[in-house]
Amino acid sequence: MKATSILLASRPHGTPTEENFKFEEQELSPLKEGEVLLKALYISVDPYMRGRMSEAKSYVPPYKVGEPIAGGVIAEVVESREQQYAKGDVVLGNLPWSTYTIARGKGLTKIDKQVAPLSYHLGILGMPGLTAYCGLLFIGEPKEGETVVVSGAAGAVGTVVGQIAKLKGCRVVGIAGSDDKIDYLKNELGFDEGINYKATSDMAAAIAQACPDGVDVYFDNVGGEITDGVYANLNKFARIAICGQIAYYNATTVPVGPRIESTLLKKSALMKGFIVNDYTGRFGEATRGLAKWVQEGKLQYQENITEGFGQVPQAFLGLFTGENTGKQLVRIADPS
Amino acid sequence: MKATSILLASRPHGTPTEENFKFEEQELSPLKEGEVLLKALYISVDPYMRGRMSEAKSYVPPYKVGEPIAGGVIAEVVESREQQYAKGDVVLGNLPWSTYTIARGKGLTKIDKQVAPLSYHLGILGMPGLTAYCGLLFIGEPKEGETVVVSGAAGAVGTVVGQIAKLKGCRVVGIAGSDDKIDYLKNELGFDEGINYKATSDMAAAIAQACPDGVDVYFDNVGGEITDGVYANLNKFARIAICGQIAYYNATTVPVGPRIESTLLKKSALMKGFIVNDYTGRFGEATRGLAKWVQEGKLQYQENITEGFGQVPQAFLGLFTGENTGKQLVRIADPS
Repeated sequence: MKATSILLASRPHGTPTEENFKFEEQELSPLKEGEVLLKALYISVDPYMRGRMSEAKSYVPPYKVGEPIAGGVIAEVVESREQQYAKGDVVLGNLPWSTYTIARGKGLTKIDKQVAPLSYHLGILGMPGLTAYCGLLFIGEPKEGETVVVSGAAGAVGTVVGQIAKLKGCRVVGIAGSDDKIDYLKNELGFDEGINYKATSDMAAAIAQACPDGVDVYFDNVGGEITDGVYANLNKFARIAICGQIAYYNATTVPVGPRIESTLLKKSALMKGFIVNDYTGRFGEATRGLAKWVQEGKLQYQENITEGFGQVPQAFLGLFTGENTGKQLVRIADPS
Repeated sequence: MKATSILLASRPHGTPTEENFKFEEQELSPLKEGEVLLKALYISVDPYMRGRMSEAKSYVPPYKVGEPIAGGVIAEVVESREQQYAKGDVVLGNLPWSTYTIARGKGLTKIDKQVAPLSYHLGILGMPGLTAYCGLLFIGEPKEGETVVVSGAAGAVGTVVGQIAKLKGCRVVGIAGSDDKIDYLKNELGFDEGINYKATSDMAAAIAQACPDGVDVYFDNVGGEITDGVYANLNKFARIAICGQIAYYNATTVPVGPRIESTLLKKSALMKGFIVNDYTGRFGEATRGLAKWVQEGKLQYQENITEGFGQVPQAFLGLFTGENTGKQLVRIADPS
């Protein structure tokens, strides 16, 4: 059985390009006891992967040059020598970018095909949904009547953050990079206000106008000058959940800006970085909460699905141009 | 009855000078019902007062030009028309810098003269002690075997932070501004290591050497480049309590530095600003804890007492030269 994989050809300096990736075909060995042969159905591309392409130690270990990129993949069991899995099962795993792969059963999660479309398990019911749920509710702790601001609001995480905040009775303001995205947030997802940062010269003033009672919770996916504008409007006892800093993922020097400590001191404010795996102990509670809202139609979810294994690098690179709305996936194959 | 007060003559630009203060004598009116006449015994001078000398809104309201500076004062009741207080009682209050003052009984706290020297209630059993206790234990949450770093370590708050951290079984590293202070921290207070930042060109390397297992808790009184050196050594899930930013209290522009958000993200670290009054609900617990340790001789406490009401401005200005060790007070009069 032949499989094609996408390897890290070289480490990017600044913004990644197609030259950092390389396609390679190999012959797969026969299955050993405890292994399953998996066919990729959907591959998730996510901003955090940029960090793993660098050599620097980050919150997840770096990819190795000459080895496959890996991340969230939904796959079908084609052949199994692991008792827990049968041919036809669909699983979620942290798997290489490969058309077919051999994996040990341990570390895979079986997906209930009835709950929602399979791809949802890479999004609203997967890592991005859990990230939104845990960061907003466990760090932000929004209370009814408070104002919640989210940056990267039209992304896979941001759209869920804003909708959960609305379900909690908050005023919700989203920051995104186009008027179309702002329309979508306000008209489709029920955000109270939206700010197109690309059309705004004074973010602090724009936030002040959109948040007349100040900012109680800030869920930050972006960082940088957008974030400085939010900081200028924090309320006493504000909570800031730092989920991402996409403004800097391609930075080649340490970013410099106004120091935040004096603001946190004046406002008795809290700021906490996190990754979703900090909350594995609460994934059960979070997944049940998200699934219930999805089934009740209270959480809307948008996917941007690119077709074909050959398009995975382009789909990943597109994350950094700020043009996509919703969770970016690549469909590799249909389930049999 | 005549009283002398120290007024804010003008707002400082940058570091305050004696010219920002003005002594003025007034005649006090007779007591009304509910009022007490107080004689100042000890006046506390504290770095946070610099913030109140500026017009800018901060976590405490600004002093008004032409009105007395106010802060923590221990005073004796000379005359009382308030049932709760009798002549000879000693009280703690937020009171004007005046030799005598008339105050309403409400807002004063009666001091038990038996527990400790009266002046301790402006220090280890007062605002600085409570600040150390609440910030370290309620934000820092140090666990046995962890490493705690405190900046401004030889100050009224820092000395208590370090000693409590030792009582909790932590490795404790103090940062201060002279070799004498470092000797004091290590030899008198039992700190494990000390760093004289004035004699250190590479703070990050110095912290790395003093903290071979990294930094779990950072109690920051200072900010700036000292703090950047600590940030470079944070462990996963580190907690940073921001108590003060004395490096910037006299700053006339917004300080700029390396952005901290990416570090908090990589380390899943928490940073929280606070003032002691955020924890009024837990003052009872904190005061009992501190008093017990003081009485058991487990908390050492050093005061730097200047003599005479005329020296109050100089004692305050001395806070910003980094030369004093221990809590800075001015003795105004002896109790009768």
